[in-house]
Amino acid sequence: MTPRELFERHRPVLEAAVAAARGRGYWSPFAEMPSPRSYGETAAADGEAAFRARLGAPFAIAQPGTGARVGAERSPYGFDLGVTYPPPDVDALLAAARGAMPAWRRVGPDGRAGVCAEILFRLNARSFEIAQAVMHTTGQAFMMAFQAGGPHAQDRGLEAVAYGWKAMTDQVPATRWEKPQGKNPPLVMDKTFEVTGRGVALVIGCATFPTWNGYPGLFASLVTGNAVVVKPHPGAILPLAITVEVCREVLAAAGLDPDLVTLAADTAAAPITADLALRPEVKLIDFTGSSAFGDWLEANARQARVFTEKAGVNTVVIDSTDDPKGMTRNLAFSLSLYSGQMCTTPQAIFVPRDGIRTGDGTMGFDAVVTALVRGVDGLLSDPARAVEVLGAIQSDATLDRIAGAAGLGTVVLASRAVEHPAFPQARVRTPLILTVDAGDEAAYGEERFGPVTFIVKVRDTADALDRATRLARTRGALTAALYTRDPALAASARDAFVEAGVALSVNLTGGVFVNQSAAFSDFHGTGANPACNAALCDLDFVAGRFRVVQSREPAAAAPAAA
Amino acid sequence: MTPRELFERHRPVLEAAVAAARGRGYWSPFAEMPSPRSYGETAAADGEAAFRARLGAPFAIAQPGTGARVGAERSPYGFDLGVTYPPPDVDALLAAARGAMPAWRRVGPDGRAGVCAEILFRLNARSFEIAQAVMHTTGQAFMMAFQAGGPHAQDRGLEAVAYGWKAMTDQVPATRWEKPQGKNPPLVMDKTFEVTGRGVALVIGCATFPTWNGYPGLFASLVTGNAVVVKPHPGAILPLAITVEVCREVLAAAGLDPDLVTLAADTAAAPITADLALRPEVKLIDFTGSSAFGDWLEANARQARVFTEKAGVNTVVIDSTDDPKGMTRNLAFSLSLYSGQMCTTPQAIFVPRDGIRTGDGTMGFDAVVTALVRGVDGLLSDPARAVEVLGAIQSDATLDRIAGAAGLGTVVLASRAVEHPAFPQARVRTPLILTVDAGDEAAYGEERFGPVTFIVKVRDTADALDRATRLARTRGALTAALYTRDPALAASARDAFVEAGVALSVNLTGGVFVNQSAAFSDFHGTGANPACNAALCDLDFVAGRFRVVQSREPAAAAPAAA
Repeated sequence: MTPRELFERHRPVLEAAVAAARGRGYWSPFAEMPSPRSYGETAAADGEAAFRARLGAPFAIAQPGTGARVGAERSPYGFDLGVTYPPPDVDALLAAARGAMPAWRRVGPDGRAGVCAEILFRLNARSFEIAQAVMHTTGQAFMMAFQAGGPHAQDRGLEAVAYGWKAMTDQVPATRWEKPQGKNPPLVMDKTFEVTGRGVALVIGCATFPTWNGYPGLFASLVTGNAVVVKPHPGAILPLAITVEVCREVLAAAGLDPDLVTLAADTAAAPITADLALRPEVKLIDFTGSSAFGDWLEANARQARVFTEKAGVNTVVIDSTDDPKGMTRNLAFSLSLYSGQMCTTPQAIFVPRDGIRTGDGTMGFDAVVTALVRGVDGLLSDPARAVEVLGAIQSDATLDRIAGAAGLGTVVLASRAVEHPAFPQARVRTPLILTVDAGDEAAYGEERFGPVTFIVKVRDTADALDRATRLARTRGALTAALYTRDPALAASARDAFVEAGVALSVNLTGGVFVNQSAAFSDFHGTGANPACNAALCDLDFVAGRFRVVQSREPAAAAPAAA
Repeated sequence: MTPRELFERHRPVLEAAVAAARGRGYWSPFAEMPSPRSYGETAAADGEAAFRARLGAPFAIAQPGTGARVGAERSPYGFDLGVTYPPPDVDALLAAARGAMPAWRRVGPDGRAGVCAEILFRLNARSFEIAQAVMHTTGQAFMMAFQAGGPHAQDRGLEAVAYGWKAMTDQVPATRWEKPQGKNPPLVMDKTFEVTGRGVALVIGCATFPTWNGYPGLFASLVTGNAVVVKPHPGAILPLAITVEVCREVLAAAGLDPDLVTLAADTAAAPITADLALRPEVKLIDFTGSSAFGDWLEANARQARVFTEKAGVNTVVIDSTDDPKGMTRNLAFSLSLYSGQMCTTPQAIFVPRDGIRTGDGTMGFDAVVTALVRGVDGLLSDPARAVEVLGAIQSDATLDRIAGAAGLGTVVLASRAVEHPAFPQARVRTPLILTVDAGDEAAYGEERFGPVTFIVKVRDTADALDRATRLARTRGALTAALYTRDPALAASARDAFVEAGVALSVNLTGGVFVNQSAAFSDFHGTGANPACNAALCDLDFVAGRFRVVQSREPAAAAPAAA
């Protein structure tokens, strides 16, 4: 199908996506449950078989390469993937990417949105295969790998497509301009407004959410007319390699140059990211990862617009609650989910030293600690259930961090290993919980990525809010949470967190968790604190990825249709 | 009136502005003719009297200052203005600006748009006074000073307000999110999405179009919730000082802190711009001026989002024309208008060495040169008419450039002084026109701001297009023009200029000139070549000036109206 035909096919979903992003209610075109009813009776088995067939083999992709192979992915569940990828011939790859852009520009905003939507629906059909690839690179448990790596990532991709399409079509493509001249004939000009990409876009993937964090930049850049080079984390190549494969298939089938989307695989030993990021052809960079490299990109990749998501310190302030059990259950799940390996996991929980008010009187500091510890312990008491919440630890560095963090405060819940019923060699660890004093900011005020939680004893709620908002301003934060029974306090806290530039979740006691954000409704990040310089997804995330270049001519010389 | 009331007053014009910016037909709420019917019988005299009353006196403005006075503006028409301004106490000024922001945020997008629109209509009523101030700082002739300094600048300001308002209200301010849970009750959350500014915005004014180039950044930053410090060029303070005065009056009358808009006057001898630009409180910078300082800002003011308009080399490619007289008349006016002291004035005119095709056969290279020279000479033969086109030379540097450029090629029209009938000491100069060979790129390929035009002898039209697009890509350009009778050539040239990232005007022979752009229809600049990193005005110009910070809470805990 042509890009125009793909646009007509997907126009209803694109229009619904734009409307959803404006209204911010619940919406998704992708089924989040891995159900045979949605994906077909054999989808799960087919997806796993497709994943298994990739193992121990070269990944086939016909793009400018060097002829060598790289690839050393190892599943956190305990086996080597053995997939190898062609490292790129960077000069040839960038030349091919650049060369593919003019024809992609001429497709126009509608056609590009149609092609991108088609890619996302094809990716959706591959969700089981991608879930296996995500699970066995990131260590996520299957359900999260399916949801966050599949439909939720596709949601974020479609959201970026919708924002890009909306922004590109913010003005008409052509118009007749007619300026009255009093008694004289009007000045009449025909004008065109062409949307053009900025250059080659580089998407730098992360090891924990390669598709969820990668799709927004990939699709925002692609839909706005750029070619995209996808540089995965060496530990999580396969999910993005499959993604690139699907992109290239759809592009080729639509009569377009597949080199609009290419894979740049590298190794931890010989990284190519910094060199790629400084290439003059590269005009857009999306990065998720460490503050050190994110800050380096912002400071050095001056030829490009750089979008970063970096480290932060997410906080919870407990003032009071009507539902201590619901609060504890909710927080225990948030701390345990994927072993805290989410950029949105709370790290510091501020509890007043005199305890918190509840519907049944005051609950002392120690009682709050005990409740949280028991909540986490209870959630994870059954190994079979525990591994489906915790997943596995993605990297050695996170294992080391857990070990190192035990000395940072009073351990109230030690991290322990859990044996995985299906993968005996999987490295599964429960969260470490410590109590510290408010003054121990050196312990809790620095991101310790992974299952490490500090319960911080503070003077009172005001002290807690001061510390939480100051940390957000100075160290960055992607999430903040507050529990309070006091509507006036909630209102003033909301104001304080707005000033601190961090999204706030209040009184989560049920099935919504602070570390989860829903595309089309929740903005992920704000761009207003050091944790990230952009939000997923808003107009600013897309508006700078293209330019509008106009042309004008007197209408008499080029009559337009009335 | 409250911000809300101002919003209701101006809502129709804001909605019309958004619609106009989308449809890009002709639209303006501000009368561009300095007519008594539009502005009142006494407006012209009152405006001039108001201007005269400012001369030789301290400019009154109650903002954090040092107690000293600065000011050394001199009219290019030959007299000192003698107005003095309080230099800012930068620490106190920035603290006051920052402190005014939370209340400005709480006004919300609608109220801020209402306040900004009110400011613009008050500025419109002061257009005659501002025109005098623009004329006697920039050297523009009165009609241009009125139009470009008054209503056209107000148009660009309103355009920025409209874009900012549209971008801020791109999502609803609050919603109820309801996610189905199969047979279980849905998850229901109430969410709010608050728009917050980035910090203090710095607007760095230029000497030639202080209001036209200053208003977009000023109003884009203000409407999106930021406080704005206006740092005028030391040679053109008064137009922006009056602007700041009007902003502060309207803010105070609406019950807001006037320190949301402040003036930071300095002197050429003791500039404060670089220090201001590096202050951590400053998060947004708008700059119009030299590439050297613009590049410095982009490289060094890393804490801020920097919007720059810098130097470039604007070109004209002449392939063929049906209307040599119209073309010559049009180009002669473009080259002469405000003595070429516009960032949009063509500098290099490429003419094939074998001449150009016309309806009456070929017109040789020399004939084209002669026609252009005669066109300029004829336009400026009557001094009284000439000074109304040329205005006066703004700076000594431009006078020096005219003198220095005479050695860069074969002079075919020398620059000469013109005596101004009303201002005998005005420094008025006609354009210098030279012919050069295509290889003399060192002469024509560098911006020589002012009335200096090179007619470049090229091999053929293809050579001309190659050179023009390459110059745009490498040196930057705000405008490009093409004359051709060949629709196929026009189409391929349009494509080439889109790739080069510069707006193209084709076959201008009447009352539209390449150096003029109309707000709500023409984008000024593209952001796609080195002449500027942003366009006036598009979504990218406003979308990064604010952030959206959300809050969410289970609906059960905070019932919202259905």
